Amino acid sequence: MPDIGGSTRLYAVLGDPVAQVQAPALLNPVFARLGLDAVLFPVHAPADRLGAVIGGLQRIGNLDGLLITVPHKIEACRYADELSPAAALVNSTNAMRREADGRWYGDNFDGAGFVAGLLSAGHDPRGKRIFLAGAGGAGTAIAAALLGAGASHLSVYDPDPDRVATLTGRLEGSAPGRTTGSAAPRLHDADVAVNATPLGLRPGDPLPFAPDRLPPGSVVADIVMRPRETELLRRAAELGLPVHHGIHMLGHQVALYQRFFRLEPGGATRAAIL
Amino acid sequence: MPDIGGSTRLYAVLGDPVAQVQAPALLNPVFARLGLDAVLFPVHAPADRLGAVIGGLQRIGNLDGLLITVPHKIEACRYADELSPAAALVNSTNAMRREADGRWYGDNFDGAGFVAGLLSAGHDPRGKRIFLAGAGGAGTAIAAALLGAGASHLSVYDPDPDRVATLTGRLEGSAPGRTTGSAAPRLHDADVAVNATPLGLRPGDPLPFAPDRLPPGSVVADIVMRPRETELLRRAAELGLPVHHGIHMLGHQVALYQRFFRLEPGGATRAAIL
Repeated sequence: MPDIGGSTRLYAVLGDPVAQVQAPALLNPVFARLGLDAVLFPVHAPADRLGAVIGGLQRIGNLDGLLITVPHKIEACRYADELSPAAALVNSTNAMRREADGRWYGDNFDGAGFVAGLLSAGHDPRGKRIFLAGAGGAGTAIAAALLGAGASHLSVYDPDPDRVATLTGRLEGSAPGRTTGSAAPRLHDADVAVNATPLGLRPGDPLPFAPDRLPPGSVVADIVMRPRETELLRRAAELGLPVHHGIHMLGHQVALYQRFFRLEPGGATRAAIL
Repeated sequence: MPDIGGSTRLYAVLGDPVAQVQAPALLNPVFARLGLDAVLFPVHAPADRLGAVIGGLQRIGNLDGLLITVPHKIEACRYADELSPAAALVNSTNAMRREADGRWYGDNFDGAGFVAGLLSAGHDPRGKRIFLAGAGGAGTAIAAALLGAGASHLSVYDPDPDRVATLTGRLEGSAPGRTTGSAAPRLHDADVAVNATPLGLRPGDPLPFAPDRLPPGSVVADIVMRPRETELLRRAAELGLPVHHGIHMLGHQVALYQRFFRLEPGGATRAAIL
């Protein structure tokens, strides 16, 4: 990465916890490769001070963008002046940039990144029946993108029935009749089963669902990136099921971030607009 | 510098402008040499949003320290829960750290750094008559440190007579009768003449004082670091006067910062306390 000096432009990734984030390791080499004097650093932002932290960062003259991770993707929407259609649909943002007029624009690449990762691994969701655990910010974004990519049916499970109802209600407009919620995980006929909960991030977490109840050949996908081999994926592999690691979702978001933040090869760093 | 990951600890240097700051180039190599997973980045903080920016940064769980530069050193005192005696005397802070109990402690190393730089260059201020231009935050800190180092007399000039009166009033308690203010620069008998104003930072700035009115042998010192060769120092050198560059003040502050922020060789990064 380039040496940091007084003219370096800033990007931050916010989460709680934040030690597990992979974005600095993925994006700082992109800045370096493009010859940009810019750096992405991790920001530990507890929920009770998220507003003060985001508000302070957004007022820094040389800070051009924010990435948002668990558990702040929904709350962060309050700090965007405008949301993309994808972010507005799921009421969740994981990337915000400052526009030329100083306004903050939020988008969400979780769904697009996840689907790009599946496609690139040869697991096209078109026409497939999907089971999804987790109706939070990431789950909702992934659900919308899977339906957009042609999944025939989506069964959503979350311990909180209100979250499931909110998710299915949101998707009903753009993909009517293709999403159902259920009080228990519907696994027996899933072609692809996705963990979009944080379960697996911490040692001793329970499994988000039981992979031994999936039919043979089901693809088991996780969005937890660290550890790479979650207990869910380890068990699925033992059962002979194809597994899809969490890092794919982020890895395939890098190109999307590059376009979103308008990072161009050898591009001049933007002048401070404040 | 080490690669930035999710566990990296943060330090920021705040100023307006900020492109000229040397602190990242000086301190990031110190982190690397000590084996610390930490990074110092520049923060452009316009005055009208300083409170929001400092408040936001102080609430980041993995941010351990702030450096403050022009023009915020005085205003930043409002965001310290406690000030060191040196910072309290001059009502100006250029370094703040988070204590174990979460409180923010502010200190000021401008004066100590400047005097350490003079001493190291062989210009001991003990018993010397000093002319000082600039009664702002840096000027006041340098004045107090020069008197503490044994300067026999200090003549302070600033276009704002209120600032001069404030400075002399502050120093009267600890060093009675040794500081005078004047409505015009008193140069004819100065052993050392110091520019502690920002004049010289921008092309076309007027000179802070006229070096051709100094006696032969006067040391001309600048606190402006970029450009290294200010117009003041260039003229002084042409006149055959010994010059003392601005970078010395900061260079000699690095060891002081290292102690202040408790940066220890191979030390474990501190656990997040939030």
